[in-house]
Amino acid sequence: MGTSIVVALLAAGHRVKAIAPIPQDELNAIKRITEHLEACAKLNILQQPIQAYLSRLTVSMDYNELKYCGIVQECVIEQLGIKKEVYQKITDVVSENTVICSNTSAIPISTLQQHIKNPERFMGIHWAEPAFATRFLEITCGKETNPDQAKRMCRLAHYWAKEPTFLKKDIRGFVTNRLMYAVYREALSIVEKGDATLEDADKAFQYDAGSWMTMMGIFRRMDFEGLKDHQRALENIIPSLSNRADVPLVMQRMVDLGARGIHNQSGLYHYSTEESAQWESAFAAFNKDIYELTKLYPADVVDTKLNKKNHD
Amino acid sequence: MGTSIVVALLAAGHRVKAIAPIPQDELNAIKRITEHLEACAKLNILQQPIQAYLSRLTVSMDYNELKYCGIVQECVIEQLGIKKEVYQKITDVVSENTVICSNTSAIPISTLQQHIKNPERFMGIHWAEPAFATRFLEITCGKETNPDQAKRMCRLAHYWAKEPTFLKKDIRGFVTNRLMYAVYREALSIVEKGDATLEDADKAFQYDAGSWMTMMGIFRRMDFEGLKDHQRALENIIPSLSNRADVPLVMQRMVDLGARGIHNQSGLYHYSTEESAQWESAFAAFNKDIYELTKLYPADVVDTKLNKKNHD
Repeated sequence: MGTSIVVALLAAGHRVKAIAPIPQDELNAIKRITEHLEACAKLNILQQPIQAYLSRLTVSMDYNELKYCGIVQECVIEQLGIKKEVYQKITDVVSENTVICSNTSAIPISTLQQHIKNPERFMGIHWAEPAFATRFLEITCGKETNPDQAKRMCRLAHYWAKEPTFLKKDIRGFVTNRLMYAVYREALSIVEKGDATLEDADKAFQYDAGSWMTMMGIFRRMDFEGLKDHQRALENIIPSLSNRADVPLVMQRMVDLGARGIHNQSGLYHYSTEESAQWESAFAAFNKDIYELTKLYPADVVDTKLNKKNHD
Repeated sequence: MGTSIVVALLAAGHRVKAIAPIPQDELNAIKRITEHLEACAKLNILQQPIQAYLSRLTVSMDYNELKYCGIVQECVIEQLGIKKEVYQKITDVVSENTVICSNTSAIPISTLQQHIKNPERFMGIHWAEPAFATRFLEITCGKETNPDQAKRMCRLAHYWAKEPTFLKKDIRGFVTNRLMYAVYREALSIVEKGDATLEDADKAFQYDAGSWMTMMGIFRRMDFEGLKDHQRALENIIPSLSNRADVPLVMQRMVDLGARGIHNQSGLYHYSTEESAQWESAFAAFNKDIYELTKLYPADVVDTKLNKKNHD
């Protein structure tokens, strides 16, 4: 993920100082960053030759490189102990005003913030993979984050070609994961009960929601389809949805089996080595296609304003 | 919806006898069907000139036209009383073996089935709009449906260029609505609490889930991203999801205000008349684009089989 965020920031025109704390990472990073930049070139994201972007990048093991950075984005593994150490190394060298952001999706921002000097400059900035070819960005305040600072980052993110979501409070899973895990809970429950297969639940979501979601989001779709029908259907369906708090067994069973999906040919679906590779390349191609499609339908297709009149 | 289903079936090569019980509908139907067929031509769905498809269509007010039909698809409004009357008129003329299907998404198949002679030949066939340009189809058994009959319809639906979902039991909302209403419940709860705005919840879903869902569905995505991370995140997030049984107030308030979204320029978002029209045409264009994109990535991108080994 780190290299993909580096490329998103390079592509936006920033100078980037990447810290790769392991010697092997330092070697691999340039190679992967160059590959990502080549992918950006194919997506017509770049305004200059790849070499121009690489010239604004340094990769180093030395945290002192961060000294004059205005923004530091942390994306180390999801372990509080390791993140704490990294924050110490960052704050030892950067200015007191440097904005520090975490890509965490597992640890609350308010928790991480307790381990940062001047916690008001700390926030969550959560990217989707590949960071350089998705419009998604979640900017989340912890209890001590200065909301004006976070809003400034939202404005900046528009220059990164993002459509950031702003969260005033660091609710568990932020917005995107809460919405998707609500789907996962329901889908896994339906499958566990034997009412439909995994494959059929996938198809329903893929071919129904997948035919409008990329352009419309949730609430715009309701405006499109009619609010009265949705209100009736909510009344009808909500009381019957899964409210379970436990994780459906099928997930635990897969983890116990060491299933890592397409990465080791053992997952909810079965894959041969060749099929895994075909899925990888099909998804890379799809990613390019859907990115180009979303460029044709920006969020302000029409400059509609939220209906303040009705909500105030 | 009726005209759009008629066109899906015509495009698949069937002869169609459409019943339009109101004289005005009879006149409008041909016009709308022709417009839909023109849309199909632009999508390169048709193999013959539009006139060839129209020659296989009759539109009539007379149920006797249905006499020799092998399949009858009902899609009248969601009122049990009206549906009952329609079923009576259908069964009065068709053969005892004619398959009868309802497009209902509100009334359980097992309930409707009680009003049909030979209920084992009755099932739900639930289409997404526009029926001729989406791959979605939900085929649902009621308590008395012959499952072999329903599976035969699933096989037939592949010839309609659909990727049908098969439901053994008519759970409320079927699969697609249950999954989406799980999202709506969570999203409305987040917005009601003030943790994020409507607009921000839309963006999160649109730009994160919207960047992969059309190709991958839910469980394939888990295989792609890694099952262990998903299992941990499920443990972490599920217990905190909304379990409310009531409908969030914002929906009731909009309905009380007579808000019909883009159809009367009053919805969750605000629209001028011109903006409504722009959204309509932008969505029509998007629909064409996403349909063409999904054609490049059929469900069997790779012919992966469900991992029977792990599940049995």
